[in-house]
Amino acid sequence: MRLTDYTDYSLRVLLYLTVRRDRLATIQEIADAYGVSKNHLMKIAQRLGELGWIDTVRGRKGGLRLAPQSRGLTIGEIVRETETDFALMACFPHHEGRAGGTPCVIEPSCQLKGVFARARDAFLRELDSQTLEQIAEPAGALSTLLGMIPIKVIHADPELAEAMS
Amino acid sequence: MRLTDYTDYSLRVLLYLTVRRDRLATIQEIADAYGVSKNHLMKIAQRLGELGWIDTVRGRKGGLRLAPQSRGLTIGEIVRETETDFALMACFPHHEGRAGGTPCVIEPSCQLKGVFARARDAFLRELDSQTLEQIAEPAGALSTLLGMIPIKVIHADPELAEAMS
Repeated sequence: MRLTDYTDYSLRVLLYLTVRRDRLATIQEIADAYGVSKNHLMKIAQRLGELGWIDTVRGRKGGLRLAPQSRGLTIGEIVRETETDFALMACFPHHEGRAGGTPCVIEPSCQLKGVFARARDAFLRELDSQTLEQIAEPAGALSTLLGMIPIKVIHADPELAEAMS
Repeated sequence: MRLTDYTDYSLRVLLYLTVRRDRLATIQEIADAYGVSKNHLMKIAQRLGELGWIDTVRGRKGGLRLAPQSRGLTIGEIVRETETDFALMACFPHHEGRAGGTPCVIEPSCQLKGVFARARDAFLRELDSQTLEQIAEPAGALSTLLGMIPIKVIHADPELAEAMS
């Protein structure tokens, strides 16, 4: 039971942009902050833009920023969009309305499918309890870890660094 | 978010043996009932035997049967054993105590890991609400679908078929 890297990276980009409120961010900067490939993030940034969750500003001084209403997105809302396959078992219908899965002989009377569907719903319900805004805390610590604050400032005066975050 | 075929087939074997109470079952018979490969099921039957969940009787008249106490196993207990990787995201520790995942720069202050751990727990808690015995109902319909009752009997006298199940 794993989520895709696509979901993982989407959450990282959204979290970065939620913490980075002061200016536009570039994909390169986000890739550097997490130590992941820029190529992975480009496709994700494009998709997040199509969803209206981030604004993309073109040009030399362009970049990405979180769309204001996205601060209220729940983790469940994000995962439902980015996770392309919630077919827990072979008999589940595929995502996006495609007719369902591999036929199983006992399906007409099998209770397992319902049990797993309820478990999946409980999983997503738990993810719905937290918004992007909520998980972007503590903002000061996260911005430090993401390299948004120069380390020398933190060492010189932690309170100032916190205030700048 | 998918479970492995290993989990899927383990549940199918256990469910078959829960329904088939009257005699030993062969792996071939279970493979035929579900229309899946016997090779897939052999490894699974061996593992279920090692776990003490099924009894394996060797010899020409040998076969498999559910160990009596296994009727009370919850679906959650089974899935925790058969699903080898509950590392939802890259930063989660791997199963079986192996030290954890791919390092992520924000891990010391990231709330996502906790949110996903709670979601996974909610998922498993829901699976713990049902036992093998509970999902092996309706036994009559399941045994018919699994080919345990000759079809001509069902057509001749459905009540008798139900009584024999």
